[in-house]
Amino acid sequence: MSKVLVVGSVALDSVETPRGIHKDLLGGSATHFSFSACNFTDVRLVGVVGRDFPAEHVKALQAKGVDTSGLKHEDGLTFRWTGRYRGTMDSAETLSVDLNVFGDFRPEVPEEFRSTPYVLLGNASPDTQRITLDQLDHPRFVMMDTIDLWIKTKRVVLENLLGRVDALCVNYEEARKLAQKHNMASAIRVLLDRGPRVIIIKRAEHGATLATRDMIFHVPAYPTDRVVDPTGAGDSFAGGVLGYLSKHGDDEASLRNSLVYGAVMGSFAVEEFGTHRLQEIESKEIQVRLDALKKMMAL
Amino acid sequence: MSKVLVVGSVALDSVETPRGIHKDLLGGSATHFSFSACNFTDVRLVGVVGRDFPAEHVKALQAKGVDTSGLKHEDGLTFRWTGRYRGTMDSAETLSVDLNVFGDFRPEVPEEFRSTPYVLLGNASPDTQRITLDQLDHPRFVMMDTIDLWIKTKRVVLENLLGRVDALCVNYEEARKLAQKHNMASAIRVLLDRGPRVIIIKRAEHGATLATRDMIFHVPAYPTDRVVDPTGAGDSFAGGVLGYLSKHGDDEASLRNSLVYGAVMGSFAVEEFGTHRLQEIESKEIQVRLDALKKMMAL
Repeated sequence: MSKVLVVGSVALDSVETPRGIHKDLLGGSATHFSFSACNFTDVRLVGVVGRDFPAEHVKALQAKGVDTSGLKHEDGLTFRWTGRYRGTMDSAETLSVDLNVFGDFRPEVPEEFRSTPYVLLGNASPDTQRITLDQLDHPRFVMMDTIDLWIKTKRVVLENLLGRVDALCVNYEEARKLAQKHNMASAIRVLLDRGPRVIIIKRAEHGATLATRDMIFHVPAYPTDRVVDPTGAGDSFAGGVLGYLSKHGDDEASLRNSLVYGAVMGSFAVEEFGTHRLQEIESKEIQVRLDALKKMMAL
Repeated sequence: MSKVLVVGSVALDSVETPRGIHKDLLGGSATHFSFSACNFTDVRLVGVVGRDFPAEHVKALQAKGVDTSGLKHEDGLTFRWTGRYRGTMDSAETLSVDLNVFGDFRPEVPEEFRSTPYVLLGNASPDTQRITLDQLDHPRFVMMDTIDLWIKTKRVVLENLLGRVDALCVNYEEARKLAQKHNMASAIRVLLDRGPRVIIIKRAEHGATLATRDMIFHVPAYPTDRVVDPTGAGDSFAGGVLGYLSKHGDDEASLRNSLVYGAVMGSFAVEEFGTHRLQEIESKEIQVRLDALKKMMAL
């Protein structure tokens, strides 16, 4: 019963930050999510890579218990993203995107994955997300992410999709654009009216906010002083959230707690390039940060 | 014993936001602070205005119990600030500053104010802040604010001053510049090393963070959907913090709670132009937001 399905990108990232330059890092939303959520639950991954995708990366996912039987290998090249962060690393500058095999990706959710109770529709075209959703068999809790690009180019499809998911998990800027509102309280109200019963707003180093019609909850970011590469922090956050929910259910108390797990996992993600830090986390370290974050919120 | 002294600017502000334009509003750091702190404690104000300063403004402060006997009236014009906020109102664009009588301000703290236990050195030149500090008689808790301008032009004086105060209360951008660090955890460590035992980082709509050597605490912003004019939010926040501390002492539990009061007062400040919203707050409204914010943090 405690399982999570993620459908999203698996990529090779090249990243430049003030802390260095790394090429061909294992990346992608489904990857970061998986390396995070696997600390709490069984993860099933659906995605696509090209013939150039190193076998060792698949093995690394499998070594963490991630079920990669939904990872398609196609002729062609793997999705590649090249980006740069400067100064305070508040935002990524995309230098190039080669969608390659991910461009025509029509996810096929394996039969045995279709009734997975907790699902992340990772960032992808809302058409791709809809195709995935159509294949699912009564999931208990579906969360979706999206980005600026789809808000600009696919608003109608996106808005229809919002009426079919349980939770929207986006960053603050995207929430404001999607809702066409300038402040958080107004944006949350508009987004709840669009359908999802849970809105999660990722605020990077400012933490994250979760709202339903009945409550609003905020978790601060864990204040790590080792910020090396912010790529994948949001997906790692989502992995903590769904990882926790899949074990504890999605009532209000669980939703609140899940956000703390998300914040902790996001804080690890930024501490090394790519997935390096995520891959080496020990459960003891997670517990230390959970405790520290809870103290940061306790009156 | 429960008294607070504020030394800072009293101004006439002209402000443009997406919600309208208003001229000659009652403004200034000491003003916003006073209208906030007076909800919790007795406030003593030291500042300077010109002959053009409307008598009704002084009466408005006095009507809230603010002791204005330290407010000097000089020949010349009152400090005037003209600014504009656009879009999401994240930052103010200064259109003009006329320091006028505030330019040569050498505060004279009245004899009977000198032993006030809780003190805010509101934003002013660090020389002005030092002159104030030199006149105080064993204050229990001195908090100082500062801005970008003084970090750029008066770093040495500012850093010396940091060694003489109990708390520094600045916005995030200023904290990073003063500490010359890119992330919050590093900035806090550097600033604690400079002297103050309490560092408070104001993060506007992202809340506020308080740190000592022993703990770190974060409060979210109260999510008001009525953001009309952000001017004075930080000073109103400081008024809530020191107002609370002056009643309850400055141990760890009080420091944590004071931040919630600060966040609530900041949320009121932005809801009307100038000090209009602050001047009409009822204690019942404060309690409702305190309760709501605490629920936003409760696991």
